[in-house]
Amino acid sequence: MEYTFSDRVSNLKPSAIREIFKYAADPEVVSLSAGNPSPDAFPAKEIAEISAKVLAENPISVLQYSVSEGYTPLRRHLTEYMKKEHNIGREGDDILITTGAQQVMDLCSKALVNEGDVVICEAPSFIGSLNTFRSYNAKLVGVPVEPDGMSITALEQALKDNKNAKFIYTIPNFQNPSGVTMSLEKRKAVYELAKKYGVLILEDNPYGDLRYSGEFIPNIKSFDEDEIVIYCGSFSKVISPGMRVAYCIAPKQIFQKLVVCKQGSDVHTNIWSQYVCDEFITKYDFNAHLEKLRKLYTKKAQFCMDLLDKYASPAITYHKIDGGLFIWCDLPESIDMPSFCKEAVLKKVCVVPGNAFLTDENEKCNSFRINFSTPTDEQLEKGIKILGELANSKLK
Amino acid sequence: MEYTFSDRVSNLKPSAIREIFKYAADPEVVSLSAGNPSPDAFPAKEIAEISAKVLAENPISVLQYSVSEGYTPLRRHLTEYMKKEHNIGREGDDILITTGAQQVMDLCSKALVNEGDVVICEAPSFIGSLNTFRSYNAKLVGVPVEPDGMSITALEQALKDNKNAKFIYTIPNFQNPSGVTMSLEKRKAVYELAKKYGVLILEDNPYGDLRYSGEFIPNIKSFDEDEIVIYCGSFSKVISPGMRVAYCIAPKQIFQKLVVCKQGSDVHTNIWSQYVCDEFITKYDFNAHLEKLRKLYTKKAQFCMDLLDKYASPAITYHKIDGGLFIWCDLPESIDMPSFCKEAVLKKVCVVPGNAFLTDENEKCNSFRINFSTPTDEQLEKGIKILGELANSKLK
Repeated sequence: MEYTFSDRVSNLKPSAIREIFKYAADPEVVSLSAGNPSPDAFPAKEIAEISAKVLAENPISVLQYSVSEGYTPLRRHLTEYMKKEHNIGREGDDILITTGAQQVMDLCSKALVNEGDVVICEAPSFIGSLNTFRSYNAKLVGVPVEPDGMSITALEQALKDNKNAKFIYTIPNFQNPSGVTMSLEKRKAVYELAKKYGVLILEDNPYGDLRYSGEFIPNIKSFDEDEIVIYCGSFSKVISPGMRVAYCIAPKQIFQKLVVCKQGSDVHTNIWSQYVCDEFITKYDFNAHLEKLRKLYTKKAQFCMDLLDKYASPAITYHKIDGGLFIWCDLPESIDMPSFCKEAVLKKVCVVPGNAFLTDENEKCNSFRINFSTPTDEQLEKGIKILGELANSKLK
Repeated sequence: MEYTFSDRVSNLKPSAIREIFKYAADPEVVSLSAGNPSPDAFPAKEIAEISAKVLAENPISVLQYSVSEGYTPLRRHLTEYMKKEHNIGREGDDILITTGAQQVMDLCSKALVNEGDVVICEAPSFIGSLNTFRSYNAKLVGVPVEPDGMSITALEQALKDNKNAKFIYTIPNFQNPSGVTMSLEKRKAVYELAKKYGVLILEDNPYGDLRYSGEFIPNIKSFDEDEIVIYCGSFSKVISPGMRVAYCIAPKQIFQKLVVCKQGSDVHTNIWSQYVCDEFITKYDFNAHLEKLRKLYTKKAQFCMDLLDKYASPAITYHKIDGGLFIWCDLPESIDMPSFCKEAVLKKVCVVPGNAFLTDENEKCNSFRINFSTPTDEQLEKGIKILGELANSKLK
């Protein structure tokens, strides 16, 4: 039988990052291509404790069907926490627990985007989200990322040019892949432009708690007097990605549509893991845990940047980061980035070619992304040394 | 701001069953409207044991990101188990772990159905699946369910009338909501018709292991020499629905598209729960556990049918079942079913009106569905007595 697939997936390819993971799975290859939390970051002991407790105390509720909106105590505690810590969430908002942040992208696309509608993205941006938008046949329009966040001029032009833009997708803190943090001025400007043009904002903040330097900058959702921002948070980087627990805080009308879509997607998120996250943020010292993570990653990020200074200069330059898990590296024009990445794999180091993060993958790009949270210090040193030698040998 | 939702969700309503749950949440109301496993059905002790073990032995793998296809040992063990026990799965097939069986419906719709394409369903059928198909703007065409499964004449007519039919959705064992089991002859006929008309079959089998009487009938997927059947199985009814672990066995080309869609939906299914399911089916006596469940439910099903004989006759008639969790009840023409269900709620008993399960909810229907797995014996007796009294009082 000749299978006929839907238009929306006929041209979809597996994520380029996931393809690169195939090389990365070779134990001889140093992978700087992942985005996994450090193995040292998981509160495994606490999770085991909580899990034993909730299974002993509430075995039926933990194992039975639950409601699509999410576990009520977790929703309440997150609502209180986000209000208190970040001034996020107003009376007109409600909170939905999702199966990872990826599901927020999926549900928002499903609820808001007709085929051909425009989603405005940062360029570069997180490939997983871009692929989800593509899977609904959204048209992606990229807005260049500058050192202080997306170009406001280009954003306004994109809004003028695309009357059918549905939302602006942004990762304001320690953006994946660029590492860039959007300035307060630009956050306000993005908000005002969205309001002016009647377009929603989808604010994705998986790394917000992982700031290593510089001052906290309020999230766009904290300005949201007009109910135009959908905020997405996640436990993947701060508790465990394997549990797949994330959330979004959205205006109630949108929330209601997302709930209906979630019913049809997976009914509800794993309830056991929702219990575990709830106990962890309420009965343990969550802020102390975050502080521990920041300490761990501050050290790793600095170590990585020191290695880049030591081994990669002058051929590879990089953008200093204040948080997150990624560093964006640039090659000079004289070095062809895709060939460089392929040669690096042959030398057993895996990075992600920058064009993978563009709205148009065929666009020329001379950057690549490295991750420092997953590899060990030894792997980082080995990998960056090889990258530096390879790039510098090409300069001569 | 006036929100504009996508065409596919503008007319979607929350599931009628979920709306009924709101009444069912009142502790004074006897709910016969759910589809939850019995609280006595969960292997809670074993799950706690396994969870403690895997978190102690493999904390990182259990909590870290994993692959979209699913946990490799679970995929291998399920493949072996399904082949050995049910002759399901051939060389051309592959297995994907999903976040509940609902996600199989979602991914198949996403990968296969363009807006306006037809999905052929049993009428009545499982409301959750129908709503997922609707959320992709599929056109649903219903084929009446007879006591031995869907009408083959009506199915062929539907296939002739709808050249853009993408798949036939069927629950051959102890169908939800009708309780009907499709005969072997009809399973073969459905397979041959699908082959003849070049249409796929989506075989949903959540209750297959819960047979209480009669002989095992081979699943449609076991005939699948032609790679036209997508088989969906689930741990929700036999281990725990709260963990959201299910799977589908599909021809490789389709499998690959489903994997790409899953990457964009939730990246992967909760890996902790996948470890737990894998250990439970391999290190524990899974078949003995299934036997225990069948014993529990055989008793409950018989108790429920005895109560219907005792209290509901002659106004309410019902269809005897050989398995599953639901009994389909008919009212005489003289009683208006929707009014009856509303009055029942006022008398504190909640059932699901039969029209909720039709492809066209506005079609006339004189049946309703009751569930016997969730309520206690006392609740069942109380509920059915009230239903019987109400119906019989209307006969006079």
